[in-house]
Amino acid sequence: MIAVGINGYGTIGKRVADAVDRQPDMRVTGVTKTQATHEAWTAKERSFPLHAPSDSARTALEEAGLPVAGSIDDLVTASDVMVDATPSGIGAEYEGLYADHGTPAIFQGGEAPDIAPVSFNSQVSYDETRRAGRTRVLSCNGTGLCRVIATLDRRFGVESAQATIVRRGGDPDQPDRGPINDIVPDPISVPSHHGTDLERVFPEIPVTTMALTVPTTLMHVHTVSLELETDPTAAAARRTLAEQSRCSVLESEYGPTSCGSLLEFVRDRRPRGDLWENAIWGESVTVRDGTVSLIQAIHQESDVIPETIDAVRALDGSVDAETSRARTDVSLGLGFETPRRESATPEPG
Amino acid sequence: MIAVGINGYGTIGKRVADAVDRQPDMRVTGVTKTQATHEAWTAKERSFPLHAPSDSARTALEEAGLPVAGSIDDLVTASDVMVDATPSGIGAEYEGLYADHGTPAIFQGGEAPDIAPVSFNSQVSYDETRRAGRTRVLSCNGTGLCRVIATLDRRFGVESAQATIVRRGGDPDQPDRGPINDIVPDPISVPSHHGTDLERVFPEIPVTTMALTVPTTLMHVHTVSLELETDPTAAAARRTLAEQSRCSVLESEYGPTSCGSLLEFVRDRRPRGDLWENAIWGESVTVRDGTVSLIQAIHQESDVIPETIDAVRALDGSVDAETSRARTDVSLGLGFETPRRESATPEPG
Amino acid sequence: MIAVGINGYGTIGKRVADAVDRQPDMRVTGVTKTQATHEAWTAKERSFPLHAPSDSARTALEEAGLPVAGSIDDLVTASDVMVDATPSGIGAEYEGLYADHGTPAIFQGGEAPDIAPVSFNSQVSYDETRRAGRTRVLSCNGTGLCRVIATLDRRFGVESAQATIVRRGGDPDQPDRGPINDIVPDPISVPSHHGTDLERVFPEIPVTTMALTVPTTLMHVHTVSLELETDPTAAAARRTLAEQSRCSVLESEYGPTSCGSLLEFVRDRRPRGDLWENAIWGESVTVRDGTVSLIQAIHQESDVIPETIDAVRALDGSVDAETSRARTDVSLGLGFETPRRESATPEPG
Amino acid sequence: MIAVGINGYGTIGKRVADAVDRQPDMRVTGVTKTQATHEAWTAKERSFPLHAPSDSARTALEEAGLPVAGSIDDLVTASDVMVDATPSGIGAEYEGLYADHGTPAIFQGGEAPDIAPVSFNSQVSYDETRRAGRTRVLSCNGTGLCRVIATLDRRFGVESAQATIVRRGGDPDQPDRGPINDIVPDPISVPSHHGTDLERVFPEIPVTTMALTVPTTLMHVHTVSLELETDPTAAAARRTLAEQSRCSVLESEYGPTSCGSLLEFVRDRRPRGDLWENAIWGESVTVRDGTVSLIQAIHQESDVIPETIDAVRALDGSVDAETSRARTDVSLGLGFETPRRESATPEPG
Repeated sequence: MIAVGINGYGTIGKRVADAVDRQPDMRVTGVTKTQATHEAWTAKERSFPLHAPSDSARTALEEAGLPVAGSIDDLVTASDVMVDATPSGIGAEYEGLYADHGTPAIFQGGEAPDIAPVSFNSQVSYDETRRAGRTRVLSCNGTGLCRVIATLDRRFGVESAQATIVRRGGDPDQPDRGPINDIVPDPISVPSHHGTDLERVFPEIPVTTMALTVPTTLMHVHTVSLELETDPTAAAARRTLAEQSRCSVLESEYGPTSCGSLLEFVRDRRPRGDLWENAIWGESVTVRDGTVSLIQAIHQESDVIPETIDAVRALDGSVDAETSRARTDVSLGLGFETPRRESATPEPG
Repeated sequence: MIAVGINGYGTIGKRVADAVDRQPDMRVTGVTKTQATHEAWTAKERSFPLHAPSDSARTALEEAGLPVAGSIDDLVTASDVMVDATPSGIGAEYEGLYADHGTPAIFQGGEAPDIAPVSFNSQVSYDETRRAGRTRVLSCNGTGLCRVIATLDRRFGVESAQATIVRRGGDPDQPDRGPINDIVPDPISVPSHHGTDLERVFPEIPVTTMALTVPTTLMHVHTVSLELETDPTAAAARRTLAEQSRCSVLESEYGPTSCGSLLEFVRDRRPRGDLWENAIWGESVTVRDGTVSLIQAIHQESDVIPETIDAVRALDGSVDAETSRARTDVSLGLGFETPRRESATPEPG
Repeated sequence: MIAVGINGYGTIGKRVADAVDRQPDMRVTGVTKTQATHEAWTAKERSFPLHAPSDSARTALEEAGLPVAGSIDDLVTASDVMVDATPSGIGAEYEGLYADHGTPAIFQGGEAPDIAPVSFNSQVSYDETRRAGRTRVLSCNGTGLCRVIATLDRRFGVESAQATIVRRGGDPDQPDRGPINDIVPDPISVPSHHGTDLERVFPEIPVTTMALTVPTTLMHVHTVSLELETDPTAAAARRTLAEQSRCSVLESEYGPTSCGSLLEFVRDRRPRGDLWENAIWGESVTVRDGTVSLIQAIHQESDVIPETIDAVRALDGSVDAETSRARTDVSLGLGFETPRRESATPEPG
Repeated sequence: MIAVGINGYGTIGKRVADAVDRQPDMRVTGVTKTQATHEAWTAKERSFPLHAPSDSARTALEEAGLPVAGSIDDLVTASDVMVDATPSGIGAEYEGLYADHGTPAIFQGGEAPDIAPVSFNSQVSYDETRRAGRTRVLSCNGTGLCRVIATLDRRFGVESAQATIVRRGGDPDQPDRGPINDIVPDPISVPSHHGTDLERVFPEIPVTTMALTVPTTLMHVHTVSLELETDPTAAAARRTLAEQSRCSVLESEYGPTSCGSLLEFVRDRRPRGDLWENAIWGESVTVRDGTVSLIQAIHQESDVIPETIDAVRALDGSVDAETSRARTDVSLGLGFETPRRESATPEPG
């Protein structure tokens, strides 16, 4: 059993903890909280030992009547791998602590790329990560784009990539985030940092991204165009994507036609209504002059969870990428299908 | 076991079906769908037999590869009680069918009040409903207001009520609903129909309501002011509300401060993130010159479910109101508490 | 001519400047900007001399190529009255400066109430302000409520007031403001500060307010209930409000039914689409047991402008309240009417 | 003077009427309304004779006390050119009427492309339109994209175009339009109709568009990538766009960074806050391997007005495209500049 400590128990941390808990080869050593927010009660309820990253955190938790199991030092000591799920930019402050303990660590995409020698995606940089001893999982948008690029690149060769990232303004529990009634180029400059980030993972592929923020909380949506080395049919491109367990190709005839209706379907089935897979509208997948275009939705709260779990195994070194991916997929129940004609025969390529 | 048929399997119907399924004394005979939307797959997945309310519905379902167990006539015949969860105004079209079979029926608040001799709330009209043979559960807003009025009326006497209802524009899976960036008096006239509706349930209490629709999907929010016959302390009013199992008084110190943060807490705990109870901000409960004021949030998708379950028992006639309420509460796990100081001693009244 | 200096040239300041410019008895001595935002160019374009409140402001403006006419000291020296239109809480920092120059000053509602001995509304505290030498104009919400309370109190006597304030989350040019898809009790406690503020102006009238923030940018909306000393007809209440030049009673038959459609009507007619008057939906004005209820919309960006202009005259001492109000109304063109039957005969009282 | 009749006086029609009114060589013969909405009062106030397109319209207007100057037949008879500004799809119903009178007509982009032999943009199809006798102005999105493609094509040659269109859900006065808190692929299929539409205007250039609808009302935003025949510098591309009078390149240093802040700047200056030009964020204009990328905002309510005015002259045949464009630009005051360093020297190419 790999002992996994989780520093930070918010949007990402609580999902990592639950996912670790479902792995046959992992266990949660504990989680940290700096304040007595509602997630602290959730951790207690789920029996994840609460650790305090500071004296003031310990005081805040104890004043709320929440039991504190130990310090963050205790947690790092007890863990084989640390998952840093602290807010963007805070992970850098803990880098030294993990290193001092010699504990491999996983950082989130909100940290600067140079926090680790390689950014992680289990299709691309699993082995490199194993050697590096620490890694940074790509951001939610980066992970979503990486899955599509890696999958189509392996099969058809990708020469260049373009994507527009329509970002949700905040998560459902962030009432302080805007915009209201506005569309904000974020950043105004092109390419956005997402492209730069992906080019580290795919050094051969120019990736030009533009990003806009809009007043929603549910999901990011991407329009993606990839110039391919070959000129497949749309059906072949769609099938290739559907075969990737972390890409769900939505059947347009009966399927959801917006982020809201998509998440409503998920909400009837999965804890927290989480959608770990890319949701790709099948009808949008088209190929023209060797360029494949598609529209996909990315659940910003949860899509990095499977890759984070894989990153734990990559750092632990116990199994190879294929084994890890399969184990993660099975334990979480990946391979989401939205409604489709039951008797449907496979479409021709 | 009370055999319960559910006509309509959308936002309300699917929740009623799951709730019935959790009752020790009820079972689901089947549900209906007119179209092969994603909920039809959900019904199949949960093994609720799909019934077709028309030939075209049967065709639509079968074309999608979904098995049809029978007609709506079959469903009514097989059921002791029918829950009509069809869209607003459609229930009236089925009234005759239920009556022809002599099957007691429950209609939703979207139907006109005169569809049944009495509108239902289990604190107020359980026995009357039992005698009437059919009933209409108050709307989500009506149910939320009724719980507060009935609870405070029983203890302190309510002389008159005022409420502003800030309505969510649509549910999360209704992308066609507006408004965007607007506040809409809906209706412009005062009182809104909610007040009129409540005055049928509380004929002695004038209830003046004003309603505004805003661009959100999560919850309705009410500001409520009740003129009381006595002049309790705020703490006494708060405690009285907290003792009602279907009113949760949120502790302000650690608790959620908006609808989004409230539902995030629920989402970590309950299927679909449903909040069946009124969520009353404890800090908002104040009394001034014998008038109690408060702010509460109402989860429009789910708050009528407990009362609908009670209505089934009221029509069946097997148990009394107290027994039904307790059984519903236990089976659903009502009595929601948000974070509060663990060692908190009860506050003085 | 009253020489008016305006400290701050943002949402409020730029509107005050234009309004001062339209008064027959006032002139703008200058405005200040701390940064070279787009409003600085607007000031230049309109020939309002730009003053720098600090050395860093001077540098920022000059670097952008904008001419700086002088310091804030120069501006206060040159002005008979200063209007402080700095962001909330910043006005307090300038209080001493205005006092040192012996220049009467007007603060905005975002400042703490104790910044001036009396909060200003020209129907209530004009003469008191004249004596005090400085004043604070009520906030946009306070001004909107004050107009209704003062008008109905004068005619029918108001015993107590209740209002729910549904606040817009931010202005149209504030993309950093939230919430997105949330309704936020703001504050959670009851009464909100609006009530406390109004009770200073109406010491005899208890005013209970509750406030919620929603994801819109256009207007605030209030539901208001006033307990009257007499029991007028709804038509009499409506007529009394319509006779107040700063309250527009919208005719429901042809008129706008939401904030968006209301402002669209204004936008076709007025600079910036500003609506200085309270917009009261006529159909909402109802009286029940001596309590009048109504729904009104308040344009947060502009409704305090007429009162601010009156406050200048109150401090200057040249004319009485009636004269000032009439002069302001004529110069700005107050007395807004939305579409109504042209041949309509006055409705009976 | 070209006599221009306008069928429909809503969002587009009222703007066309005002723009025609400002042309030295045109006059408004009248406008039509089918219902007594607020715009009917606006027409009366501006002295545009109201015409009734049907008997029921005449009745509705007269009942509201609005004078009716004549029928739609009278209007077409009195006009040299008709501008059809009826709602999407309704223009087709009037096509025969205009043809029967032999009156050249301009349709909006909401009509099917085959309503006219050519879709209009004054940079591309002015002469063709003159010969055709009727035309269809491209939609707001089509017009915005056409300006960029035509301008860069003339200078650098465009080989192919890609664009993501992030559409506003509704206009500010359309409270019935959604979505709330959702992003909707609209359409799901790729390319969206915008691309198909543009390929009729640019038969040599493949145009692939993807469209998403979001919960805003202010502007559409496009991300655009054009593969060029040459490889200019970004500065050259930016300068070429800036030289087009209907493209405003926003200076990033002082300029607006979102749609809301952009329109706030316009609102301080122009009637209705209309922005007829494309607003291109200068900082976003980049060139990589001969592909230029940029982000632009399009004011859906007003950007087609200049082209509609040009279309009137194209159909009238009095002047050539260059003369018409210049006349339109001067009369409306096109050539919008947002804040920039006053002393800025032209950037090198």
